[in-house]
Amino acid sequence: MTELVSNQLNSKDKENSVEILCIGSELLLGSILNSNAKWLAEQLASIGLEHFRQTVVGDNLERIKQTIQEISNRSRILITTGGLGPTPDDLTTEAIATAFNTRLVESKEILIDLEEKYKLSSEKMPTINKTQALHPEGADLIQNPTGTAPGIIWDPKPGFTIISLPGVPSEMEKMFSINAINWLKSNLLIKDVIMSKTLKFTGISESSLAEKVGDIMSGENPTIAPYASLGEVKLRITAKAKNHRDAKKLIMPIETKLLKIGKKFYFGSNDETLASVVIKSLKEHSETISIAESCTGGALGAALTSIPGASDVFLGGVIVYSNWIKHHFLGVPLDMLERNGAVSSSVAKEMAKRVREKFQTDWGLAITGIAGPAGGTQDKPVGLVHFGIASQSIIKSIQVNFSSHKTREEIQQLSVIRSLDLLRLFMHNQS
Amino acid sequence: MTELVSNQLNSKDKENSVEILCIGSELLLGSILNSNAKWLAEQLASIGLEHFRQTVVGDNLERIKQTIQEISNRSRILITTGGLGPTPDDLTTEAIATAFNTRLVESKEILIDLEEKYKLSSEKMPTINKTQALHPEGADLIQNPTGTAPGIIWDPKPGFTIISLPGVPSEMEKMFSINAINWLKSNLLIKDVIMSKTLKFTGISESSLAEKVGDIMSGENPTIAPYASLGEVKLRITAKAKNHRDAKKLIMPIETKLLKIGKKFYFGSNDETLASVVIKSLKEHSETISIAESCTGGALGAALTSIPGASDVFLGGVIVYSNWIKHHFLGVPLDMLERNGAVSSSVAKEMAKRVREKFQTDWGLAITGIAGPAGGTQDKPVGLVHFGIASQSIIKSIQVNFSSHKTREEIQQLSVIRSLDLLRLFMHNQS
Repeated sequence: MTELVSNQLNSKDKENSVEILCIGSELLLGSILNSNAKWLAEQLASIGLEHFRQTVVGDNLERIKQTIQEISNRSRILITTGGLGPTPDDLTTEAIATAFNTRLVESKEILIDLEEKYKLSSEKMPTINKTQALHPEGADLIQNPTGTAPGIIWDPKPGFTIISLPGVPSEMEKMFSINAINWLKSNLLIKDVIMSKTLKFTGISESSLAEKVGDIMSGENPTIAPYASLGEVKLRITAKAKNHRDAKKLIMPIETKLLKIGKKFYFGSNDETLASVVIKSLKEHSETISIAESCTGGALGAALTSIPGASDVFLGGVIVYSNWIKHHFLGVPLDMLERNGAVSSSVAKEMAKRVREKFQTDWGLAITGIAGPAGGTQDKPVGLVHFGIASQSIIKSIQVNFSSHKTREEIQQLSVIRSLDLLRLFMHNQS
Repeated sequence: MTELVSNQLNSKDKENSVEILCIGSELLLGSILNSNAKWLAEQLASIGLEHFRQTVVGDNLERIKQTIQEISNRSRILITTGGLGPTPDDLTTEAIATAFNTRLVESKEILIDLEEKYKLSSEKMPTINKTQALHPEGADLIQNPTGTAPGIIWDPKPGFTIISLPGVPSEMEKMFSINAINWLKSNLLIKDVIMSKTLKFTGISESSLAEKVGDIMSGENPTIAPYASLGEVKLRITAKAKNHRDAKKLIMPIETKLLKIGKKFYFGSNDETLASVVIKSLKEHSETISIAESCTGGALGAALTSIPGASDVFLGGVIVYSNWIKHHFLGVPLDMLERNGAVSSSVAKEMAKRVREKFQTDWGLAITGIAGPAGGTQDKPVGLVHFGIASQSIIKSIQVNFSSHKTREEIQQLSVIRSLDLLRLFMHNQS
């Protein structure tokens, strides 16, 4: 596990420690995702700042105040988002002032800025916006280039700084990138650079991969953290060093070891996806592909076309959801469908072969299976999927049972992942 | 602002107060959005439970332990997510046990369940998975129907219950919905019933709909909360009453008013989606559909087949990503493609008409557009999409410009939504 955070809170830890507090009842009601916390977390990690806790509270003066006081006792920096607007439920400015017994004063500069912004929009400034010029006495203000809510940078007590930013993501991001980050860089001792590389694997479970990787996982610098999502396992290597070159040097040998261990299952790094890797590989080989989907109903095509420029290599496909269509449109023989069933190795192969011929592509890829919840039998349970792959030289099929405990959506998504992996492996073996 | 949270923390508050703690360094690194917190927040709000704080900490034993102890002093219920996996960075079970000085014991039942799950997948259970059968002595376990990590429900001290769920969203959601929610309902004093009904609209912006709805929005019981997501606006009517019948009585007149105001844009309620509404409508009319997709590359088919039982009415479709394929496979005339371009009203109509004929279905639905980021021109910018719809009696097309500021993925998703809405409206007008 990447341990940006150390094991004990001692005075050394407090030196640079950062927390994030997101304020807004809409977060407690589950109306929106907390994208601000994610964005700030990424920014902090990229400049190597420790950040060990995120908190969300609603638009409640007492709770905001209490939470800020708590944080001021254990951390060096608090970054807040939200609650700086003009309406009565915007309470952040008042809360931080009362938390440290400080009175609010009006900023003439901000008031003029607000009035000018309203002039530009040829709208009259509502009286309630005046409250946005208030700030705790002694605090610095951060101009908001696009919205009305100014930000605040303030040291209410020795060794504690609070940076308050608005909740609107675009405003918050701009103000953090322009002002807050400079403040952090020039006021904190940022000694180290933190660098990460993510390796992505498929066709293996998180625990099996972790077991294979073994002792390497327990290193302290770089650290290795595994993350699992549907059909995919990631290993994130994170190194701490004086500069980027040194961090890279720490990552490289670990990366090499991990790639050697997980070779069979590794498909890409960082932002790469199975679809992007397959599209890239097809482009490199100047090859084209067409697809025939049954139980995934278009999801494989959607995955391929989610990649910009997919049209260079992906010519199209057919969604053949009924037996009659498999026969009539793709030419899968009726007696084969009757004898073996639509979910069978022979039909998967036939679909791949025939779609490849029809579309005149280098590769044909086919999926036929039972996504459920209905349609399963003892012989062919929900979760049984046959994949077919065809090129000039090969026609193959593989059978996978994704288990009937999985949902329809999971079986469909896992089928897409597996089919792309199958193509990736075949292309790899060929070249 | 909806204020589910009250202004002072007193003993009455603690009675039913809930907090959420999400555990995972990937959240502190900003690698993923905290979708679990959002999902749980929505669930809690829907059953009327107070929830006043969310916290995120990393995979650090001491910090998890400290945070849990803090929460146990101020809240009645703590729901944790994450850290129940088998790898060394999964520390939740150990942390909750040490937080309350309790030893860990092994559950035979869970061990057998784990071994059986591995048997089914014909993979050998890695030794490290054994740790997943551990739990604090005296705790109850929640079976995980799809994954390996069991959940925990435990009262480590009087008046405090901790519910630990895994971090994988699909597993967490299932276990919360099946087990945790029943526990909450039967163990807490939920005096009032909270009932919600969500009305779903498309083809109108959140602010336009809010403006149309006007004063009705400011009611206190029921409350109306608008939520916007890509291509969709929801109005959630929430009523608080002594029992379900009374709550229903409060909701009904408001629902009627809202439906009258937003009639043109309303497509369904609660769990209904555009795809489910369209599939249902096709079933009711005993009609079938086939589709032809260009810029969405299969995403429309995937949306339709995400609905169980779609195969009764959705026979299939073609993904015609290149001009040559549009001609060769679907029979769109080459001179039409050359004269008007693939992204044109005539080609959209032709695609709908021809796929309908080829698949011998009642309806044909077609999408052709420019999803970007490349491929736009002054005449035909990124975001321009033509939709075609064909039945026995009509062949129509409509043109929509989704704006080139949108991402490729957004344009693809909006196109799917619009095409389904188009079909819905045509079917509706017909019957």
